[in-house]
Amino acid sequence: MKKVVLAYSGGLDTSYCLKYLKNELGYEVHTILINTGGFTPEELNGIETRAYELGSAHHVNLDIIDKFYEKAIKYLVYGNVLKNNTYPLSVSAERVFQALETVKYAKNVGAEAIAHGSTGAGNDQIRFDMVFQTIAPDMTIITPIRDLKLTRQEEVAYLQQNGVEYSWEKAQYSINKGIWGTSVGGKETLTSSQPLPEGAYPSPLTKTQPEKVVLHFEKGELTGINNEFNKPSVNIQKLEELASAFAIGRDIHIGDTIIGIKGRVGFEAAAPLIIIKAHHLLEKHVLGKWQMYWKEQLGNWYGMLFHEGQYLDPVMRNIEVFLEDTQKTVTGTVTVSLKPYHFTLDGIESAHDLMNTKFGQYGEVNNAWTSDDAKGFIKILGNAQNIYAQVNGESYD
Amino acid sequence: MKKVVLAYSGGLDTSYCLKYLKNELGYEVHTILINTGGFTPEELNGIETRAYELGSAHHVNLDIIDKFYEKAIKYLVYGNVLKNNTYPLSVSAERVFQALETVKYAKNVGAEAIAHGSTGAGNDQIRFDMVFQTIAPDMTIITPIRDLKLTRQEEVAYLQQNGVEYSWEKAQYSINKGIWGTSVGGKETLTSSQPLPEGAYPSPLTKTQPEKVVLHFEKGELTGINNEFNKPSVNIQKLEELASAFAIGRDIHIGDTIIGIKGRVGFEAAAPLIIIKAHHLLEKHVLGKWQMYWKEQLGNWYGMLFHEGQYLDPVMRNIEVFLEDTQKTVTGTVTVSLKPYHFTLDGIESAHDLMNTKFGQYGEVNNAWTSDDAKGFIKILGNAQNIYAQVNGESYD
Amino acid sequence: MKKVVLAYSGGLDTSYCLKYLKNELGYEVHTILINTGGFTPEELNGIETRAYELGSAHHVNLDIIDKFYEKAIKYLVYGNVLKNNTYPLSVSAERVFQALETVKYAKNVGAEAIAHGSTGAGNDQIRFDMVFQTIAPDMTIITPIRDLKLTRQEEVAYLQQNGVEYSWEKAQYSINKGIWGTSVGGKETLTSSQPLPEGAYPSPLTKTQPEKVVLHFEKGELTGINNEFNKPSVNIQKLEELASAFAIGRDIHIGDTIIGIKGRVGFEAAAPLIIIKAHHLLEKHVLGKWQMYWKEQLGNWYGMLFHEGQYLDPVMRNIEVFLEDTQKTVTGTVTVSLKPYHFTLDGIESAHDLMNTKFGQYGEVNNAWTSDDAKGFIKILGNAQNIYAQVNGESYD
Amino acid sequence: MKKVVLAYSGGLDTSYCLKYLKNELGYEVHTILINTGGFTPEELNGIETRAYELGSAHHVNLDIIDKFYEKAIKYLVYGNVLKNNTYPLSVSAERVFQALETVKYAKNVGAEAIAHGSTGAGNDQIRFDMVFQTIAPDMTIITPIRDLKLTRQEEVAYLQQNGVEYSWEKAQYSINKGIWGTSVGGKETLTSSQPLPEGAYPSPLTKTQPEKVVLHFEKGELTGINNEFNKPSVNIQKLEELASAFAIGRDIHIGDTIIGIKGRVGFEAAAPLIIIKAHHLLEKHVLGKWQMYWKEQLGNWYGMLFHEGQYLDPVMRNIEVFLEDTQKTVTGTVTVSLKPYHFTLDGIESAHDLMNTKFGQYGEVNNAWTSDDAKGFIKILGNAQNIYAQVNGESYD
Repeated sequence: MKKVVLAYSGGLDTSYCLKYLKNELGYEVHTILINTGGFTPEELNGIETRAYELGSAHHVNLDIIDKFYEKAIKYLVYGNVLKNNTYPLSVSAERVFQALETVKYAKNVGAEAIAHGSTGAGNDQIRFDMVFQTIAPDMTIITPIRDLKLTRQEEVAYLQQNGVEYSWEKAQYSINKGIWGTSVGGKETLTSSQPLPEGAYPSPLTKTQPEKVVLHFEKGELTGINNEFNKPSVNIQKLEELASAFAIGRDIHIGDTIIGIKGRVGFEAAAPLIIIKAHHLLEKHVLGKWQMYWKEQLGNWYGMLFHEGQYLDPVMRNIEVFLEDTQKTVTGTVTVSLKPYHFTLDGIESAHDLMNTKFGQYGEVNNAWTSDDAKGFIKILGNAQNIYAQVNGESYD
Repeated sequence: MKKVVLAYSGGLDTSYCLKYLKNELGYEVHTILINTGGFTPEELNGIETRAYELGSAHHVNLDIIDKFYEKAIKYLVYGNVLKNNTYPLSVSAERVFQALETVKYAKNVGAEAIAHGSTGAGNDQIRFDMVFQTIAPDMTIITPIRDLKLTRQEEVAYLQQNGVEYSWEKAQYSINKGIWGTSVGGKETLTSSQPLPEGAYPSPLTKTQPEKVVLHFEKGELTGINNEFNKPSVNIQKLEELASAFAIGRDIHIGDTIIGIKGRVGFEAAAPLIIIKAHHLLEKHVLGKWQMYWKEQLGNWYGMLFHEGQYLDPVMRNIEVFLEDTQKTVTGTVTVSLKPYHFTLDGIESAHDLMNTKFGQYGEVNNAWTSDDAKGFIKILGNAQNIYAQVNGESYD
Repeated sequence: MKKVVLAYSGGLDTSYCLKYLKNELGYEVHTILINTGGFTPEELNGIETRAYELGSAHHVNLDIIDKFYEKAIKYLVYGNVLKNNTYPLSVSAERVFQALETVKYAKNVGAEAIAHGSTGAGNDQIRFDMVFQTIAPDMTIITPIRDLKLTRQEEVAYLQQNGVEYSWEKAQYSINKGIWGTSVGGKETLTSSQPLPEGAYPSPLTKTQPEKVVLHFEKGELTGINNEFNKPSVNIQKLEELASAFAIGRDIHIGDTIIGIKGRVGFEAAAPLIIIKAHHLLEKHVLGKWQMYWKEQLGNWYGMLFHEGQYLDPVMRNIEVFLEDTQKTVTGTVTVSLKPYHFTLDGIESAHDLMNTKFGQYGEVNNAWTSDDAKGFIKILGNAQNIYAQVNGESYD
Repeated sequence: MKKVVLAYSGGLDTSYCLKYLKNELGYEVHTILINTGGFTPEELNGIETRAYELGSAHHVNLDIIDKFYEKAIKYLVYGNVLKNNTYPLSVSAERVFQALETVKYAKNVGAEAIAHGSTGAGNDQIRFDMVFQTIAPDMTIITPIRDLKLTRQEEVAYLQQNGVEYSWEKAQYSINKGIWGTSVGGKETLTSSQPLPEGAYPSPLTKTQPEKVVLHFEKGELTGINNEFNKPSVNIQKLEELASAFAIGRDIHIGDTIIGIKGRVGFEAAAPLIIIKAHHLLEKHVLGKWQMYWKEQLGNWYGMLFHEGQYLDPVMRNIEVFLEDTQKTVTGTVTVSLKPYHFTLDGIESAHDLMNTKFGQYGEVNNAWTSDDAKGFIKILGNAQNIYAQVNGESYD
């Protein structure tokens, strides 16, 4: 019997896919849920149970958090990646890794097809298909939701006809949770003018008294929090717990989708935003001007291609190597003040801090040069624009 | 008698310069204060009085706010310029225009020399000298503070010897105010680890109940606030008044100075930050992906050269023309929520909004293409990385 | 009767289209040949005759050379655009303008459909369709060659069945000529290893004695040759005649096509290459360092989007404005030596030349600064890397 | 007795320095000539003899060709570095390594000072001083030529007074030879309009019959020529011998010097230009579009900072790592045709060639997608500009 591996989330769309692949297309359906940090053990159990109830030949819940950190989040931190200066690529990055692991699993179980539940109107279909095409060019890609363009009602009806009687009440917002942030879409995000209401964000404000937290970075990685050291993926989750109580990291991202339309989505991502901003501040102290410049160029590009499902473009590996090399001196601590709905950065301490008073204190003292040096510097620094102005008779008015 | 024009601020350093230029160097000293929005009428009167008391042959207070807006701030908004993603170039941009106007005035009064009170340890000396050299290559530049490297005590002593008996008590922080922000330097900013305390910021928190404000942009310029329309320079000042009551826009900038050392300075800039972020959001809705990309490239470069005193570099004019051309469709309103210490952006309305449901709603509906179109799109979009992977036998693990 | 406008070239593919549109699809077929400089009057007459013989309801030969210059070539010169540092966008740019004018004509004659003869394997289909979709979203696009995937033999057979008895002998190379260059594809260009043989290039070497030619540029445009002044489009054609006798400007371009595969094509483009290199040299003398830098960035991007059929992307207009603004001082003459198969640039003369001995002669004399100025300059210029090395204990080995 | 290490070339300037340092400043002068490929054994012997005659306490000729290749040329090839699209950084790169090795030697012999013979009007002083300052901040830098601003006559006279009776006839051109090219300055290069005459170039044309040469690249390095394999530094020299007989690689570079004036210099660099162009062609076949794009960005920046003496900027190391990582697939052969005064590239062969007919042949066949795929691709590719045009009512005229 021919096998298909379905990326299964337990929701209506992929439940429909499961039934459809089995009953209409005659596949032995293997379901897989790839966990990038967005599911509790209870939720995972529930999904597994449901998968079997719906006819999965075999279901697996695969935790790839550490791999996802090593191969993706790490570089998103090195590059201070915020899409459009706002969004930490929460969902975009996850999808790519869910696709990669789905293929790997499909090869292992000897499937000849892979299926996902994306529509034809979004970015996720592209992230899935791009990976599938590239690393499994001989597997068939099946996408019932995209192809059939069914309404919610039609999906529910089909499932009922096939004996599935869950209540599929539509949540007001579509929520997508992972270690690197939670997206919140629907209703207001479909307009240009409305913000999400307080209640739309999954993590409510529960703390109002400011707290300080010290982040320890070693070569660009978050190796500790408040003098407790652990692996970065654990630290991220600890920081999320601490900071989401302040309802920090909420925002709305609006940008160009891969399919050319503008898309708007809310998100909360307390830990990612704090980590990126703290890491960036540390870098401002320990890296040179042109390191900062080119990190920004390459980090933004990395984020753009990643967001657009081009994770397997060979330039991505080259950029990763560049970013990693810049982190040699990004070691030190950053103190962050958590406050209701926002945070501030107090400052940093680092053995690599270039703000070094031996050479002079900005605006105050110049130990390493004289006023004549400064005048010579400025005279020659001005040569080019001076020559230009005089050759071309430029004047200011 | 030979004339010098001194950029005079009323402080200890430039007061020393005034006396020194007159008594030691024998100049007829003309003083000028160029107001870019940081002085009250009372302060201006006080400075004028002091200038004459100290021996100025002639003093003038020159208001260049509108010119400064037209020639500088406008482009800083078009380009969403925040140095190191943080600092709106408050002081840097002002200095350049103070230099430009000082030269113009010096030419008008027939001076043969120009003087400023900068030290040899900071950026301001470069901003002044670069402009002076370029548009007044034949004038002598005199910089007593830089050359003599006097202590505060020596300056006070000299002034006393010359009959000046003001009390020059040192403020705890050095404050520099203009229409595009107020810098706050000293004490904590000389460390890497300390934030500025609440009291160091000139504008205290006086409002705690959130308020909404609607900003009207026309071709990228802030033409109105809450349905009241005025020229942008006035709107900026109105917004500053509204928003600084919430203690919005405080932060610390750390970056590479022109002289190669790292410099750290606090600032408050409620209106600049709100305007730039709101303008940026509106652009995300009305501009194309590559417009955003290149605006960011050129805007950041513009900010860097401006910050570094290279305002007269010819590429600056080319970039201004580029930025202006991108603003043709940047018209609409942005609603901002002001809250204690921070603000959020609610959303925008614009006739040029590209988030247009006729073509499809992101992630939900695709009206303008079919699922087959999407599959064809992805297939061909993936060709390049697909070929690369197969030719090079790349696999994922 | 429903009308279609067909972009007609007189070749086998578009002749097939003409017959097919008329006989099979029942259209009144209006044919148009848009001349961007690649046709002699005789050729144009021949094409017109053939169009009517094949059943065109109306044929028009439209000369858009001047418009093409004004809206495209001009900017390609300003930007020194050579795709992959090699190819002057000869065919790519033409196609876009042929598409634009085809739509305009189709609207004028009230057509409801537009047709072109591109295959599904190349870039041209994209250039045509992108323009058609964007400025004529309601017109139907018909592409028989792409859709039917016929062989040459099948096309000839169909035409014979329909009474067309031309001899359609296949040329060894597919040649595409326009004012901005001639592409040469086929045989060797389908390999990676073979160069085109001498005989494949349409313009043979007829001169072997070197000649000098003086190019006059005014604000970036080629306004004269050897002291004879004319409009740029005429000058380009005159220069092409002069220089192609030396068999100058031959090369092979290999690069990424829009569809993700690599494509290789030969070309000869004597005038475009000489003009771009001469213009570039003049710019090196009259523009500042950062003007050159950003021109290169934006020029290359402009070329890439243009090549990829994205001419209507709004950023293209912004870039044009930038490029134009940089040309204010690009006025002067460039002397070029034409030699068999290559050329060299002798030098330039310009009132805006920044190589100005008043300030100092490179490596020889420094009039505008002293050795102490130079030392001060270097000392401070080195601060940043000096601090980095000392803070991080870097050493060289 | 206090020691100084002098970078000694045997010319008038450094001979003056030697005498001056010894007689006037009382130093024990250690001379060093750092050979980057520009000297014959005879020349080296002559320089050594002269050094001792002039009073050197100890002279050493140090061959650093292999090190220079490994630490510099290799990356200049990876990055296809041509300053201003023309100049392979021949002299600029050498100077930096001469400075680095001079310091190393000075530390070894326990010198307290380092000296070089650069003037105050050029780039070399900056390349030397920047390195000296950074890796030997405690050593004194002595630059008699820059400080004293002597004429040639004064230098000769001083040497004669001190018993040195060489004939110092001034060569018409100042020639500087190294493995990565030979610069030729003087006379015509001091104008903007004159090319260098045939005779100014050291390597005359001696071959006129075209020859083919096959270059073997492995991971971006030139590992063989015509099936003979050797280390890259040897291959470069072999290729130079082959190709300079055709007088290939002559040109004039004009660009912005570090001191802000424009500088013009001739050069011949047959091997560097052939290698870079051949390497670039190979890359066009084996690298992806965005790899090419970012390599160009970073390669150019690397070349700029290197040229400007900023080799020790930390971003340089990051860029090297990036460039190296891109070379993983740059393996194959390139066939080059050598002809009088110029060369052409025939084509390449590589197991990593992405021009792979399995997917489709550009413009001819599309095996990997259908015409419907192509149409879907174009439809969605056009969405963004389509939406922009319709929202903004853009039309073409």
